[in-house]
Amino acid sequence: MQGSFKHSVRRPLQPVARGLRALRVRPNHVTLAGLVASLLAGYFLARGHLSIALIWLLVSLLCDMLDGDLARLDARRTGPLGAFFDSCADRISEAWVLGGLLIGQAYHGPGLNWVWLTVWVLALSGSFMVSYARARAEGLGIGCTVGFAERPERMIVLLALLIAGWRASIWFLAALAFMSWLTVGQRVAHVARATRSGSDATCRERAAG
Amino acid sequence: MQGSFKHSVRRPLQPVARGLRALRVRPNHVTLAGLVASLLAGYFLARGHLSIALIWLLVSLLCDMLDGDLARLDARRTGPLGAFFDSCADRISEAWVLGGLLIGQAYHGPGLNWVWLTVWVLALSGSFMVSYARARAEGLGIGCTVGFAERPERMIVLLALLIAGWRASIWFLAALAFMSWLTVGQRVAHVARATRSGSDATCRERAAG
Repeated sequence: MQGSFKHSVRRPLQPVARGLRALRVRPNHVTLAGLVASLLAGYFLARGHLSIALIWLLVSLLCDMLDGDLARLDARRTGPLGAFFDSCADRISEAWVLGGLLIGQAYHGPGLNWVWLTVWVLALSGSFMVSYARARAEGLGIGCTVGFAERPERMIVLLALLIAGWRASIWFLAALAFMSWLTVGQRVAHVARATRSGSDATCRERAAG
Repeated sequence: MQGSFKHSVRRPLQPVARGLRALRVRPNHVTLAGLVASLLAGYFLARGHLSIALIWLLVSLLCDMLDGDLARLDARRTGPLGAFFDSCADRISEAWVLGGLLIGQAYHGPGLNWVWLTVWVLALSGSFMVSYARARAEGLGIGCTVGFAERPERMIVLLALLIAGWRASIWFLAALAFMSWLTVGQRVAHVARATRSGSDATCRERAAG
C-alpha cells in the first residue's frame, strides 16, 4: 500500500491505540478480537448475509490495524510471538472469509460451476502464496516485501466484492487471483535476484513442509 | 515422518539420484517436473479420473524426494533459491491437487454440500498453515519442525483418499484437517515456549502479509 494512504488511514487510529494502551489492552488481545470478527464475517457470508459480513470484516480490519499500532506504542511488551500470532491469525482469517464466500455462493448466490471454483481456488491459494513466499524467503535470510498485493490491498478487493454482491463475485475473485499470483511472481523473481547477487549461497536442507 | 521409514523409502532412490546427477539434471528441474506432475494430478482429479490422478501424484512425490536427494549430492550447485523454489512448488502442488478434488467431487463425485465444503476448506487451510507456521517462525529466527503432519504424512492421506474414492473422501479430508490443525497447534505452542524461554525477544514489525 502507498505509504501516504496507509498513513492517512492510520492517523485517526492513534488516539484509539493510546486509549487501549491506557486500558492495559495488549496487542495479542486485539489480534484475537480481529480473528473472531473475521470468523463471524465468514459465518455470515456462508449464511448469505453479505452486509452483516461486511460489517464484521471491517471490524476485523480495524483490529488488524490497531494491533500493529498498539505493538509499536509498547515495544517492550511485544516480541516475535506477537508478530507470529498476528501473521498466523491473518492467514486463518483470510481462509475462513473466502471459505464462507464459497459456501454462501453455493447456497445463497447463483451456485457453483467449475469456472467459479477454479478462480476461487486460484484466489485463495494466491493470497496464501503471497504471504508464504515472504515468510519462506525471510526464513532463508532474504527480505521480501516486494509486490503490491499485500493483505490491505487484498482486503480492499474482498470488501468491494461484498458490496458488489454474489453475481459479480467472480470478477473480484479473478482480480484477487491475478494480483496475488503477479505478486508471487514478483517475489520469486526478487528471491532469484537476491540469491544470485548475494554472497549468502549456503546450502540449506530442502524443507519437508 | 519416522526417520527409519523415511530412510527405507529413500534408499532405493539413491542410485536414481546419482544417475540423474551424471546426466547433469539439476534439482530445480526435478522440482519443476514434480510440480507439472501434480498439476496433471489436479487436472485428472477435476475430470474425475481418480486412478490417473493417483499415478501422477505418485510421480510428483517421487520427484519431491529425488530433488532433495539430488540437492544433497551436489551441495555446491544448490542454494537458498532451490530450497525456496522447492517449498513454493510444494504448496502450489498441494493447493492444485485439493482444488482438483473439489471440482471432481462437484462434477464426478456425489456432489458438494456445506459439511463437505467446510471440511475441505479446513483441510486446505490447515495444510497451508502447517507450512506457513514453520516458515514464519524460521523468519523470526525460531526453528519449528515439531508436529507430525508434515508434507509426506499429508500426501499419504491424500493417496489413501484417491484409492478409497469419492464417497469416502470426506473422512480422509477430515483426517487431513484434524492432523494439520493439531500440528498448527503444536507449532504455535512451540513458538510460544521458545520465545518465552529464549533470549531472542527483539521487537519486529508486525507483518502486513
